[in-house]
Amino acid sequence: MSDNSLGRSLLMVSFGESHGEAVGVLIEGIPAGTEIDEKRINEWLARRKPSTSAASTKRKEDDSVEILSGVYRGKATGAPFVAIVRNKGYVDDFYSFAEEGWVRPGHADYPAYIKYKGFNDPRGGGRFSARITVGFVIAGAVAEEILKPLRIEVVGYTKSIGSVECPDLDIESARKRYEFETRCPSTEHDALMQEEILKAKREGDSLGGTIRITTGKLPVGLGQPVFSSLDSELAKAYFSIPAVKGVEIGAGFRASKLRGSQNNDIYVLSNNEITTLTNNAGGILGGMTNGQPLIVTIAFKPVSSIYKPQRTVNVKKMEEGILQLKGMHDACVIPRAVPIAEALTYFVFADMALRGGFINER
Amino acid sequence: MSDNSLGRSLLMVSFGESHGEAVGVLIEGIPAGTEIDEKRINEWLARRKPSTSAASTKRKEDDSVEILSGVYRGKATGAPFVAIVRNKGYVDDFYSFAEEGWVRPGHADYPAYIKYKGFNDPRGGGRFSARITVGFVIAGAVAEEILKPLRIEVVGYTKSIGSVECPDLDIESARKRYEFETRCPSTEHDALMQEEILKAKREGDSLGGTIRITTGKLPVGLGQPVFSSLDSELAKAYFSIPAVKGVEIGAGFRASKLRGSQNNDIYVLSNNEITTLTNNAGGILGGMTNGQPLIVTIAFKPVSSIYKPQRTVNVKKMEEGILQLKGMHDACVIPRAVPIAEALTYFVFADMALRGGFINER
Amino acid sequence: MSDNSLGRSLLMVSFGESHGEAVGVLIEGIPAGTEIDEKRINEWLARRKPSTSAASTKRKEDDSVEILSGVYRGKATGAPFVAIVRNKGYVDDFYSFAEEGWVRPGHADYPAYIKYKGFNDPRGGGRFSARITVGFVIAGAVAEEILKPLRIEVVGYTKSIGSVECPDLDIESARKRYEFETRCPSTEHDALMQEEILKAKREGDSLGGTIRITTGKLPVGLGQPVFSSLDSELAKAYFSIPAVKGVEIGAGFRASKLRGSQNNDIYVLSNNEITTLTNNAGGILGGMTNGQPLIVTIAFKPVSSIYKPQRTVNVKKMEEGILQLKGMHDACVIPRAVPIAEALTYFVFADMALRGGFINER
Amino acid sequence: MSDNSLGRSLLMVSFGESHGEAVGVLIEGIPAGTEIDEKRINEWLARRKPSTSAASTKRKEDDSVEILSGVYRGKATGAPFVAIVRNKGYVDDFYSFAEEGWVRPGHADYPAYIKYKGFNDPRGGGRFSARITVGFVIAGAVAEEILKPLRIEVVGYTKSIGSVECPDLDIESARKRYEFETRCPSTEHDALMQEEILKAKREGDSLGGTIRITTGKLPVGLGQPVFSSLDSELAKAYFSIPAVKGVEIGAGFRASKLRGSQNNDIYVLSNNEITTLTNNAGGILGGMTNGQPLIVTIAFKPVSSIYKPQRTVNVKKMEEGILQLKGMHDACVIPRAVPIAEALTYFVFADMALRGGFINER
Repeated sequence: MSDNSLGRSLLMVSFGESHGEAVGVLIEGIPAGTEIDEKRINEWLARRKPSTSAASTKRKEDDSVEILSGVYRGKATGAPFVAIVRNKGYVDDFYSFAEEGWVRPGHADYPAYIKYKGFNDPRGGGRFSARITVGFVIAGAVAEEILKPLRIEVVGYTKSIGSVECPDLDIESARKRYEFETRCPSTEHDALMQEEILKAKREGDSLGGTIRITTGKLPVGLGQPVFSSLDSELAKAYFSIPAVKGVEIGAGFRASKLRGSQNNDIYVLSNNEITTLTNNAGGILGGMTNGQPLIVTIAFKPVSSIYKPQRTVNVKKMEEGILQLKGMHDACVIPRAVPIAEALTYFVFADMALRGGFINER
Repeated sequence: MSDNSLGRSLLMVSFGESHGEAVGVLIEGIPAGTEIDEKRINEWLARRKPSTSAASTKRKEDDSVEILSGVYRGKATGAPFVAIVRNKGYVDDFYSFAEEGWVRPGHADYPAYIKYKGFNDPRGGGRFSARITVGFVIAGAVAEEILKPLRIEVVGYTKSIGSVECPDLDIESARKRYEFETRCPSTEHDALMQEEILKAKREGDSLGGTIRITTGKLPVGLGQPVFSSLDSELAKAYFSIPAVKGVEIGAGFRASKLRGSQNNDIYVLSNNEITTLTNNAGGILGGMTNGQPLIVTIAFKPVSSIYKPQRTVNVKKMEEGILQLKGMHDACVIPRAVPIAEALTYFVFADMALRGGFINER
Repeated sequence: MSDNSLGRSLLMVSFGESHGEAVGVLIEGIPAGTEIDEKRINEWLARRKPSTSAASTKRKEDDSVEILSGVYRGKATGAPFVAIVRNKGYVDDFYSFAEEGWVRPGHADYPAYIKYKGFNDPRGGGRFSARITVGFVIAGAVAEEILKPLRIEVVGYTKSIGSVECPDLDIESARKRYEFETRCPSTEHDALMQEEILKAKREGDSLGGTIRITTGKLPVGLGQPVFSSLDSELAKAYFSIPAVKGVEIGAGFRASKLRGSQNNDIYVLSNNEITTLTNNAGGILGGMTNGQPLIVTIAFKPVSSIYKPQRTVNVKKMEEGILQLKGMHDACVIPRAVPIAEALTYFVFADMALRGGFINER
Repeated sequence: MSDNSLGRSLLMVSFGESHGEAVGVLIEGIPAGTEIDEKRINEWLARRKPSTSAASTKRKEDDSVEILSGVYRGKATGAPFVAIVRNKGYVDDFYSFAEEGWVRPGHADYPAYIKYKGFNDPRGGGRFSARITVGFVIAGAVAEEILKPLRIEVVGYTKSIGSVECPDLDIESARKRYEFETRCPSTEHDALMQEEILKAKREGDSLGGTIRITTGKLPVGLGQPVFSSLDSELAKAYFSIPAVKGVEIGAGFRASKLRGSQNNDIYVLSNNEITTLTNNAGGILGGMTNGQPLIVTIAFKPVSSIYKPQRTVNVKKMEEGILQLKGMHDACVIPRAVPIAEALTYFVFADMALRGGFINER
């Protein structure tokens, strides 16, 4: 719709820069009467905060939502909802290298400088910072509420960090993810992942990983045809999260090596309901839900900000040099990305539910 | 924008059903004066035809474009361009099972039946058939022409079919892809893949595979921020191709296992131009091109239509049964999907070039 | 949404040029199962044909719709609907002056030449011809069908032609409009208007006029807030009809001279239903229907194509000269514009009904 | 695009409610590097403030803009711009009648109550208050800056209030409008209009009027075809201003009574530039600028809030009664609407300039 928007019947426009006045989100299409609870939104925001453990950044993001419009007496009015979180607790001084023209490897600095002719806000990555996902999370909290009549629950968890990979979990086993430091709801793998992160951190390095999204059974037919297929919209959303480099639905890349007779999920009747024996499709056929749980895997590259000195170039002076980053950076963002991926999944589902007439309270 | 549209400054709306009157595409935003050559479009269409070899379907798709609007004396007028290809050479009788209520495993039949309350055209999968990609290919041919001033060339090739995988190729080595039956431009792997396909075919089964997209060096800064990042828009486009189950940019899932110090592409100066020592980013940083070649890998599940009998259900009678498909089906669509993936890549690039003001002839 | 589109939940994209291959429309969002009857569409198209009387052009427009997609067994499938009417019965030779660079006063020729750098199709005005309203009428026929569950009926009639003005009529009196040559359902004024047209025609001149749109009582709350107010969307639609120069809702310009105490429509209860004593609002308050009939008046300038010789310039040679038009032109288009204005009204209502959840069959 | 948005390449989303936390606007598409001066925005906002004279409301709207994103060091960054004005100086108690269910004649209360099921914010009209035009004015200030390279100047003035009408003025004579209490830049008519307003005010009544928008000569070809014609987009924008009931371009309704030979604006050459002898077209042909000044007239109904007691109904109790409004209301909003209409005109021009490639700094 617009460059910074996601969705159609439920539409969010993301705005804000890392070290600007605020980050936030505008949402259109929330059915009038939907409960909007600031406390619940703040709980969502708390989930994307840096952990208190040694494995995460020390930047304090004590984020608290401020709702500017669209809510009256705790309910959505049907008018556009705008909510912001003020930016604070950062230090501009860490970004003098950016003003000088040094571009960080792995970051958006270089293409952003060219595209915006140097007018983009470079502090903390500006518009390209993961800080903007604050707005995604707010939108997810709202979308979760919109979906309540459809009883849709989305659960994400850390599937891998670096070389540590946890086995597949269903929604019941994964639901406790936020009780685990790494958001990997397996005591064993959570511990291994923490070790892996601390090791990378000690070496001034960083790690990537994967997140798995799953749900319970879903209504059949969510998703619109062709370019608005459920998988298209989900992938578009996930690739908007900084550092995402891959998205798989169901068996994904593994499916490319299977035969049709192995990969096709066979339909059967169970208690007079249609179900499938396997779920290689990850719950999506022809761009629509087929009733089975959604299964998505999202790959994140390792954090680009590392403390190790790196070679790079200065785009203003066109010279090479060595850049050593200061400031506070996560060695691994996977745990913090779990609620972000969940939020976007909720949002896409809510948009599709409204587009498809599954919810009609507008 | 709309459910069936892709792009913004250059926008296509896909329409048509497999066994309806025609499939086609409407495109808005073609700069007035862009050359539109029917012959070139037909050459593009010829690339997605079933091959003449034994490995492919026998359905004759002698597709020839018919332009309905937007062109005058061989040039785009600036008005909406509409082009169709008539559907012919199919047999409706093969789809009586659909009318009866039997749904094919792996296909959209079941969710489509629920979503459209039985009003969707079931013949050949209707709107969910790969036949609709005819319109994508027409759009790609137009987009390629729009991009000429930017000298952007997109080359896709078959990276794997079933268990046969070909090594990474750069654009120079891959350019001859259409001289190979499987669109894998390696004589050795092309032969192995053909074997693999024939084997599956003989067994009434089907295969999936992966396609690699690459380019030469690109202008810096193509791609819009956040939800319209280049990777978001590409992924959205690719997931609109039937059977796609995964998309990776650059190192993709492999990147999730690397350290930051390994994955970051180091900037250097070469002949006073900024370049990188590696290309794990696949040419995209912060959702924008960084000047390096685009690298994308797309995973396709095996063709859902197989000749082996399969268990399934009847959604009208709510009973189980065995379904054996007739008709003409590809045992592997990867070779035919290469021009489709290329076309969508060209289209997304052209849209981004217009959005970002790289081309201004509107 | 896009330059050539109208609507959101129901969306049409207009395409085609006057002397190109075809004119037509693509519609997204038609609820699956909506009856699509070619015969009824052709009846709608017949209403915008030139009349057989002396007062109209002699160009034969024997328009017959050809549906290309989105319909199966007479019902909408839920997929995009595309329909065209082939262009025929015109003579290209009349437009050699355009190729030479002469621009017609009152027409789009000059700005179109500049904007499209000479690549636009100049024959018959190309994209700027009233011929493109064929697509609007097709869309109106479809929208009328979508609105059936809400029992919304739209009736337009010729309110004035030149200096002849007919009194205000309610929907009951106006319904017979198509039995009158001028679409003015008053025997007396119809005769006077015909005279006026013949007089202008004899003098090689042309006439404008006004069209009134009305309805019966409407559901309350149709229309979205602010920029998608019902009046905003209607005005946008009407101003897309060539030659429209003014739009009034209800008392319109007359309201600007009233006092608030005169203009406010007083609410009363009648049979326990809320109604108003007057309808200065024309049925719209705050951009939404208030239950009273819609009242709109649309002003059309006189036809720009006249047979009298006119001074003008040649944009290629940059010189002045005299231009005398040939070909077949209506001396007054008001009668033919009545179904066009009705069609757009139906379309906007149907879009609003879908946006607002009044109809949910998607 | 979305219900609350205007424009495409330059897009604003309006948000906020009269007595909510804030009113504001989100703008996408501002070219990076555009100067954004808070002081200038506040000057624009000051123009829509109630006048200090007796003729206007006493509500103090000491509006001061707060920019939340999209600006760095006084220049647009290319990221979404969000700006708000906090709501203050109002008294909620005046709206207890709304909570009780009484609907004000002429206001949106009744349809809004039905559409939003009672969840809309009723205080001060909520989303339907003229207060939301604060965001339009901010957007206009930004758009004016974007248009600077094209030297486009928009001047609006009060053309009539009640029965007092001022003659047509060109841009030079009208430019001093803000030095006049009523924004009618004629000492004589300004005085008469003030009298008219005071008289209505004394009687507890209100007045409507008309606003004329004009410009100097314009670039040729601004405006997109058909549904995005310049007149379509302007009309859509103007009808979004509360109380607008009519829009005319150029000769407007008067043109409907002219002959083609009278109404056609004859092209001539003047200093080797194409110009027209008259400007009945109001500067728009075929939906595009033809180089002549824009001429638009906008009709406003009288203010719906009057102090005279009025009959009305209670929608919760379904009973009739008498309602007498308290609070502070303008007797005539025309003077305050002048900058609002100017702002929207600038905005539409800037959007069209970006859509058409007249400005390419994105």
